[in-house]
Amino acid sequence: EIVAALSDLMSQSDLMSQSDPGRQSNEMSLPAAGLTVTITAGPTREPLDPVRYLSNHSSGKMGYALAAEAAALGASVRLISGPVALATPAGVERIDVESALDMQAAAEAAASESDLFIGCAAVADFRPATVADHKLKKQSGEKQMQVTLIRNPDIIAGIAAQTQARRAAGQRAPLVIGFAAETRDVLRYARDKLARKQLDMIVANDVSTPGLGFGSDSNAATLLWQPLDQNTQHEQAIAACPKTELARAILKRALALH
Amino acid sequence: EIVAALSDLMSQSDLMSQSDPGRQSNEMSLPAAGLTVTITAGPTREPLDPVRYLSNHSSGKMGYALAAEAAALGASVRLISGPVALATPAGVERIDVESALDMQAAAEAAASESDLFIGCAAVADFRPATVADHKLKKQSGEKQMQVTLIRNPDIIAGIAAQTQARRAAGQRAPLVIGFAAETRDVLRYARDKLARKQLDMIVANDVSTPGLGFGSDSNAATLLWQPLDQNTQHEQAIAACPKTELARAILKRALALH
Repeated sequence: EIVAALSDLMSQSDLMSQSDPGRQSNEMSLPAAGLTVTITAGPTREPLDPVRYLSNHSSGKMGYALAAEAAALGASVRLISGPVALATPAGVERIDVESALDMQAAAEAAASESDLFIGCAAVADFRPATVADHKLKKQSGEKQMQVTLIRNPDIIAGIAAQTQARRAAGQRAPLVIGFAAETRDVLRYARDKLARKQLDMIVANDVSTPGLGFGSDSNAATLLWQPLDQNTQHEQAIAACPKTELARAILKRALALH
Repeated sequence: EIVAALSDLMSQSDLMSQSDPGRQSNEMSLPAAGLTVTITAGPTREPLDPVRYLSNHSSGKMGYALAAEAAALGASVRLISGPVALATPAGVERIDVESALDMQAAAEAAASESDLFIGCAAVADFRPATVADHKLKKQSGEKQMQVTLIRNPDIIAGIAAQTQARRAAGQRAPLVIGFAAETRDVLRYARDKLARKQLDMIVANDVSTPGLGFGSDSNAATLLWQPLDQNTQHEQAIAACPKTELARAILKRALALH
C-alpha cells in the first residue's frame, strides 16, 4: 500500500513537473509546507577564559517550541541553538553554537535562504574584550577585578538590514521576526525596537512576571508588526499560555504577514 | 524469604540494642554506612542583573558521580548543587543553589554535621560588585562597558579553617577534600592549594586535555593528601577513566584517611 501511494505521488509529481513529490503533497494540506524557517534559540556564552563565561537565563524553550510548531506546520526548519538542556524537536535541523559571533555567522548564512527568520535567542549584548588562553588565576590579596566588555553585533538588526537591501533588489528575503524580553516599559521598548531595527514583527514579553518567560514553560506576549501606524492597530495581545500555544499564535500571524 | 530475612535482621539488631536495624546491618557490609557526606557540585551563577550572569563550564558530573558512589557505599549524602542538567542520584538529598554566597550558606550549615566534606563545585572566584534590579539597557553609541568584580568567599578554605578549630576543640569535624581544576602547572597549584587552605586531601586535574574534565564523562586526576612531607609519597595518580570510577577511587582514599 505504501509503495502504491508513493508510486501515485511520484506519478502526480511527474505530471506536475515537480522534483519533490512529498513537499508538493504537503503544500496542499499544511500551511507552512514549502517554506524554509530559520530560528535562533537559547542563550549565547561569551568566554572570559577557557572555563569562565558570561551568559543569561534563557532556557531556549520558546525557540524550541517555535521550531517544533513550524515543523509540525510543514516547514523545513533550521534551529540555530545556544547551549540548552533541550532535545531537538522531530524533523528539525539543529546547528549548535556558543558565542554571539558563532551565532551571527550561522544565522547570516541561513537567513538569505529562508522565508521566515525568527530571532528568538537571547544573544549577549556584550562580550569580554579579551579572552585569556589560560584560566585566570586569583592573585593573592587581589580584592577586585575589572572586566572590559565590548558590544556584540546586533544579529537580527544585521539580518533585517540585509533583508531590506535584498527586497529593494528584488531578491529572496525572509520575513524577519524579533523578540523583546524586558523587565519594564515592555511595549514602549518593543515598538522602538521594531522601528529602529526595521523588523517585520516583534514579540514583546515581560520577563519580570514570576512563572512566565525565562526558564518557564509558559509565556504571555504582545505581537506588534509593521507598518507602524498610529491609526491602525497592528498589535495582538496573547494571554499567559503554554509556550507551544504562543508559538502557534506567532507562526499563524507570521504566515498571514508573509 | 524477604520477610524472614528482615525478621532475622531485626532480631539481630535487637540483640545488639541498636535503634536502626537497617543501618546496623549496612555497617557490616558497606564501607561508608553510618557516615554523613556533604558534596558541593556544579558551577555557581553570579548575577549582573535579573537576566545576565557570570558562570563557568562545570557540568556537575564529577560531584554527582561522587554523590551517587557515596550513597552506593552506604553513606547519608547531601548534595549542594549549582544549576546543572543532571538527575539527582538515587537516595541523595539535593539542595539547589545559584550563587557562591548561597552555596556558602548551605555548605557551612551542613559541614559541621558531616564526616566527609567534598568541595567539588566550580565556585566562581568573583561576582559582579553590584547587581542591577532591572535588565541593563544598551545605551545607544555605547561601545564598551566596565564591570567591577569582587572576590567571592573561598568556601572550602572557610570550612577547612572551621574544621581545624573544631578539631582543636575536640568537636566533630569532617575530613575536608577539595578539587584543583587547572589548565597548567596542575600539581604545583594543587600542592600549594592543599597547604594554603589546610585541606586534608585535594584532587588535582588538568582541564585543558580534550575529552577530559569539564563537561566530559571521563577524567584523570592525582590525589594528594596530608601530611605534606618531602620524604613520604602522599600522592596517587589515577589514569583517565569514567568519572564514576574516579569517584570510587577518591572515596576509597577518603575512607582510608578518615
